[in-house]
Amino acid sequence: MAEVVALDTRDPLFGDDGAAAFEWLCRLGDATLILGHRLSEWCGKGPALEEDIALANVSLDLIGHTEMWLALAGEVEEKGRSADHLAYLRDAMKFRNPLLVELPNRDMALTTMRQFLFDAWHFEMLSALVDSRSPRVAEIAAKALKEVSYHIERSQDLVIRLGDGTEESRARMQDALERLWPYTGELFAADAVDAAIAAAGIGPAADSLKAPWEALVTETLAEATLTRPETKQDAQTGGKTGRHTEHLGFLLAEMQFLQRTYPGAEW
Amino acid sequence: MAEVVALDTRDPLFGDDGAAAFEWLCRLGDATLILGHRLSEWCGKGPALEEDIALANVSLDLIGHTEMWLALAGEVEEKGRSADHLAYLRDAMKFRNPLLVELPNRDMALTTMRQFLFDAWHFEMLSALVDSRSPRVAEIAAKALKEVSYHIERSQDLVIRLGDGTEESRARMQDALERLWPYTGELFAADAVDAAIAAAGIGPAADSLKAPWEALVTETLAEATLTRPETKQDAQTGGKTGRHTEHLGFLLAEMQFLQRTYPGAEW
Repeated sequence: MAEVVALDTRDPLFGDDGAAAFEWLCRLGDATLILGHRLSEWCGKGPALEEDIALANVSLDLIGHTEMWLALAGEVEEKGRSADHLAYLRDAMKFRNPLLVELPNRDMALTTMRQFLFDAWHFEMLSALVDSRSPRVAEIAAKALKEVSYHIERSQDLVIRLGDGTEESRARMQDALERLWPYTGELFAADAVDAAIAAAGIGPAADSLKAPWEALVTETLAEATLTRPETKQDAQTGGKTGRHTEHLGFLLAEMQFLQRTYPGAEW
Repeated sequence: MAEVVALDTRDPLFGDDGAAAFEWLCRLGDATLILGHRLSEWCGKGPALEEDIALANVSLDLIGHTEMWLALAGEVEEKGRSADHLAYLRDAMKFRNPLLVELPNRDMALTTMRQFLFDAWHFEMLSALVDSRSPRVAEIAAKALKEVSYHIERSQDLVIRLGDGTEESRARMQDALERLWPYTGELFAADAVDAAIAAAGIGPAADSLKAPWEALVTETLAEATLTRPETKQDAQTGGKTGRHTEHLGFLLAEMQFLQRTYPGAEW
């Protein structure tokens, strides 16, 4: 009897699928890390003080999530790598973020539209992870979901206001949407890693998030008077398996500079 | 008698002023390294194929000079640092390039105008160094001067064609000139390092290059129908003593990435 209880309450993250769990946790942690870094590039350069501070806050939230996901990834991997080690000492091909988040900020239209498309996925993902069979994953998801509920509210509101705004703002938002659309499919692309995680009850099947995402995005674009692109959503993929755009290398060169130049430096 | 001959032919670089010689050689080598890197950023992005290749060639020339100057600096320093070590493992505050060369490329107008203003100084500097009392310095200068004679011919020609060109090209060149002018004074600023080098007969007094530079620049700007700025030429200084703009840190993060990430990596 005792054995059965122990088996049932064991965290499936630390089961036989350690390699898949590590990959999957890096996908979560790298997505928030790279998007968090991109947002931090706006710091001191936002178009209005309130936007500047909001972007910095969202950036800090995402980097906070990263710290939790990557610390857990390091535990699962059992090679003694910390969250800092994973963030600052891996090279580009070891990163597992979707390409969407590594694209340059370009302007506020692209930054805002990207944030909304990501937040909509992020919100659905965390909402599912709250019920993870892994208590550790569920705990992190619950913490992060509180913040992401605010992120999606904010980015959705901005998409509507800028889409249904001036002629200039509407054109920029539509252009941003067209540019980003081919990168959105990767968020829902499933492979053996996702299948193993779903089978273990740790996370949702990657493609199961698509329908609720579609519903939210379609409704929001309609209210924003923006036209849903007709291009393929999965034209640009590869980030989740380590095949990145050239932009990631430049981002990492800046992000990792301090730790690369002064190895082991701490606050 | 033999002693006197030995004394006269001894390279003054390796005399009592080793510290000044090291600083001075870093100023030369860092100027060509950082400008060479800036030019390399145009690679594959030039406005015309011929310009793209020309910029890459000038970049490679400058990095070739860097290799010679920094290797000599490492010898003079006698701490076993190679040219690669000095280029890739110093942090920003240890760099000794003038601020002019670390400014972002912006557009072809600024890149071209900066190149001309630098080439005019570089040409005068190398022409003086050919007569250095240091045989090692004279030898490097002679090699570099052949290439720089071509650089100045090319950049001067472009400044004239773009200045005395269309309304748009003239406005851009004038704007570039205004932006760069406050950085040109640093090229001729003298301090104890320059004084020691001049006293030892290794190089010219820094300010002795100003008159010939002025003559060439004034003549060229006139032919380009551009107006010489009335702003102070020495408003922006500090690079030669290690006080840099924020741009240098970002440049080094990219330039030093490989060596920082894969320490000791070789071809």
